Amino acid sequence: MTRTEQMKLFLDASSMTAVGISRRTGPGSYNLLEHLVRYGYKGSVYPVNPNSSEILGIKTYPNVAAVPEVTDVALISLPRLSVLQAVKDCVAKGIKAIIIISQGFADAEDEEGPRMQDEIVTLARSTGTLILGPNTFGVANASTGFCTAYLPIPMDMNGVGSISQTGATFIGLNDIRLVGKAIDVGDMCDVDIVDCLEYYEQDDETRVLALHIEGMPNAKRFLEAVRRVSLKKPVVALKTGRSGRSAQAVQSHTGALAGRDELWDVALRDAGVIRVDDIEELSDTLRAFLTLSAPRGNRVGVMTPTGGFGIIAADGCEKHGMELVEFTDSTMESLRALAPEWLGVGNPVDYFPSVSIMGHPRAETELAAMRLIMTDERVDAALGVMGAFSPELGDDLATLAREMARDFPDKPLVYFLYGPHFEEVRAKLESTGTTLGFPTPERAARALMHLRRRADYLSRQQER
Amino acid sequence: MTRTEQMKLFLDASSMTAVGISRRTGPGSYNLLEHLVRYGYKGSVYPVNPNSSEILGIKTYPNVAAVPEVTDVALISLPRLSVLQAVKDCVAKGIKAIIIISQGFADAEDEEGPRMQDEIVTLARSTGTLILGPNTFGVANASTGFCTAYLPIPMDMNGVGSISQTGATFIGLNDIRLVGKAIDVGDMCDVDIVDCLEYYEQDDETRVLALHIEGMPNAKRFLEAVRRVSLKKPVVALKTGRSGRSAQAVQSHTGALAGRDELWDVALRDAGVIRVDDIEELSDTLRAFLTLSAPRGNRVGVMTPTGGFGIIAADGCEKHGMELVEFTDSTMESLRALAPEWLGVGNPVDYFPSVSIMGHPRAETELAAMRLIMTDERVDAALGVMGAFSPELGDDLATLAREMARDFPDKPLVYFLYGPHFEEVRAKLESTGTTLGFPTPERAARALMHLRRRADYLSRQQER
Repeated sequence: MTRTEQMKLFLDASSMTAVGISRRTGPGSYNLLEHLVRYGYKGSVYPVNPNSSEILGIKTYPNVAAVPEVTDVALISLPRLSVLQAVKDCVAKGIKAIIIISQGFADAEDEEGPRMQDEIVTLARSTGTLILGPNTFGVANASTGFCTAYLPIPMDMNGVGSISQTGATFIGLNDIRLVGKAIDVGDMCDVDIVDCLEYYEQDDETRVLALHIEGMPNAKRFLEAVRRVSLKKPVVALKTGRSGRSAQAVQSHTGALAGRDELWDVALRDAGVIRVDDIEELSDTLRAFLTLSAPRGNRVGVMTPTGGFGIIAADGCEKHGMELVEFTDSTMESLRALAPEWLGVGNPVDYFPSVSIMGHPRAETELAAMRLIMTDERVDAALGVMGAFSPELGDDLATLAREMARDFPDKPLVYFLYGPHFEEVRAKLESTGTTLGFPTPERAARALMHLRRRADYLSRQQER
Repeated sequence: MTRTEQMKLFLDASSMTAVGISRRTGPGSYNLLEHLVRYGYKGSVYPVNPNSSEILGIKTYPNVAAVPEVTDVALISLPRLSVLQAVKDCVAKGIKAIIIISQGFADAEDEEGPRMQDEIVTLARSTGTLILGPNTFGVANASTGFCTAYLPIPMDMNGVGSISQTGATFIGLNDIRLVGKAIDVGDMCDVDIVDCLEYYEQDDETRVLALHIEGMPNAKRFLEAVRRVSLKKPVVALKTGRSGRSAQAVQSHTGALAGRDELWDVALRDAGVIRVDDIEELSDTLRAFLTLSAPRGNRVGVMTPTGGFGIIAADGCEKHGMELVEFTDSTMESLRALAPEWLGVGNPVDYFPSVSIMGHPRAETELAAMRLIMTDERVDAALGVMGAFSPELGDDLATLAREMARDFPDKPLVYFLYGPHFEEVRAKLESTGTTLGFPTPERAARALMHLRRRADYLSRQQER
């Protein structure tokens, strides 16, 4: 069995031995068995607990040896002093993939923790067993409803595969779930980020990779692997522990070295990884890769019902290297026909005088103006501006987005939405699956910029 | 009547002559009379329309002369060629405050527009009449339900007074309404930003000023005024038109000059204005000044249930010059008592092992840990981290926030919340009126930074 095949035992487990499942259930009990039932996981789960005969109607076993099959994966959630014996039991049983949830190993401040971890690793290596953790939430897989975290995890089979040095990412971000599939590598005593990269590389359900990196012992090996994977799938990375203070915290969190931040910056970019600055950018960028096509260039047409926020949109484009296109003469002529004769036209396209002064119906004017922009051969992408003053506006935007996606599939369309009904309008817009709404033009332009940069990177690699 | 008293005619109008109200009502009609009815405006409105006798049950008048009183304010919403005559009618009637909604004056590309504007200004000046606009939404006042915009405007008597060169800000941002009170100065043919500053300076209902600036002819006079006002109330400014391209758009939008961006940066800071980069920062900063007290210094205590996102929080603090405090020995001792004996403790405070390993109840542990942080004499502000995996978490956070606000009123508390139930958890947290939730630690730390910088500015000014 290759290491990657062994990695599938974790993510695609159809059976699990779970050592240290508590009899306590309900709020505050952090009982993962309860969550597995709710997720509808169809695999076999064998809880090991010497003090019970069943938990939540599921038969329990007094020890690992008593479990009636050799499961794909074992999970160990015990006080740290009991973990080594449990690993021995699982190895003796023949289980080839073990998740150690427990803390207090390399992350401990005493000598006992690191020493026990060494023993576990030595045992695992000598028997061809993979260990994930310790100090981990383990893994999650939305397509099978399998998750080893002791908190309830919101999953969504959205094509995101995440690799993380914290279980916090399992909770997901505001606008996106990071499970898809997810692996918390924890303290990386054995299974490391490269193993996870190689799993996702071959996994057809994963379209985009999300990486959370605090630090690692062998960055060179990681960079070689991620350079290869990033040619196949976009890899978006949040590298944390930037400051001196937070780098210290990294070391006490997982025992890893954070490394010099500026070196990471260069190395990641060079390996084709899209590095993001914060979790908002992580979320925006993942959503962009899941939804939008890459623009052929960086020239944007902006459409707005307000001159003032058109300027704000232009500022946002400029900030992220997206250029406001100069329209062709033919487009300019058509725009003039839409506007009062005394009004200057250009990019951004302020179509509202056509409605408020010339009396044209709003939704139709928006559609006509956006079509003009998209038709212009110089336009690579469009940014729409809309004040979300009523939820119903989202219906018109959704119609527009569908038509544009149908007629101009190679030109991504994003929206900058502001106002009290942002959430409702965005939800309707994004229900089309073809466009995204952002609360600032900077974030919209940044998403386009990342799509463009990746396309540039891939074409440079092909030219080599 | 002083100019500031005259400005009150606009904002605090108890009667309005409205020239050019359409008989059309309902969706797509952009009829402001309809909105005024919905807002519950209690003042008198006299629509002028020669082709009707009533609109929405409100008696109309064939011309301005026929209106039975000299109203506080007149609004003119007519095709541009009819505006000058309407201004003459209003001036003849004795109205001292006129709002010109119509476009096509200094913002037009022809010669006719600027020429008509000159005539209007000359007439107004010679008769002591103030003109707001043209090319404006006019004014809005949440406390009286008065608004002259032709779109429905979400208002909230929240203490925000805004001055804007676009009506788009009337719609508000995602997390905050900018009406409070609002003035769209439009093309500033007469009433300018200084007039508006002086109105808000004396207005007791306005606690924080929001400025949207594209450009202006007399920046020196503005800077003198804003320097004075910023000593009394926080002034948060978004200066747009940063790039060459968007500065061009400014000129065609309102005929104003955008000016060199870096000069604005220095000049605004020097005048005590808090300049923000984008509308998200505008929203966050206004909310901070409305809700939080200023920290005495820049030392932050971070509390987190996850080491990994504690590091992300530390990165966020570092980015905005907020320092992770080194706790006193006494705090450190108490933190050690809360944690397993092998766990390193410090700042950020990861309290979750106390729950997951030692079995302490979560909500009580959070409260105890936050109280420890707040009690530390070195701590100026606290940043909490919480994964919003269920809406109910917000109830515990709200309880915690209330206790902290009661016992530590001088130490602001902000939260970094992430996960699928962000909105619900934040709403519960913020319902306390004492703290704010942010979707990234960077934004939380930035809000603290702005509070701190303003406090620093004020104390430097006092020392002079």
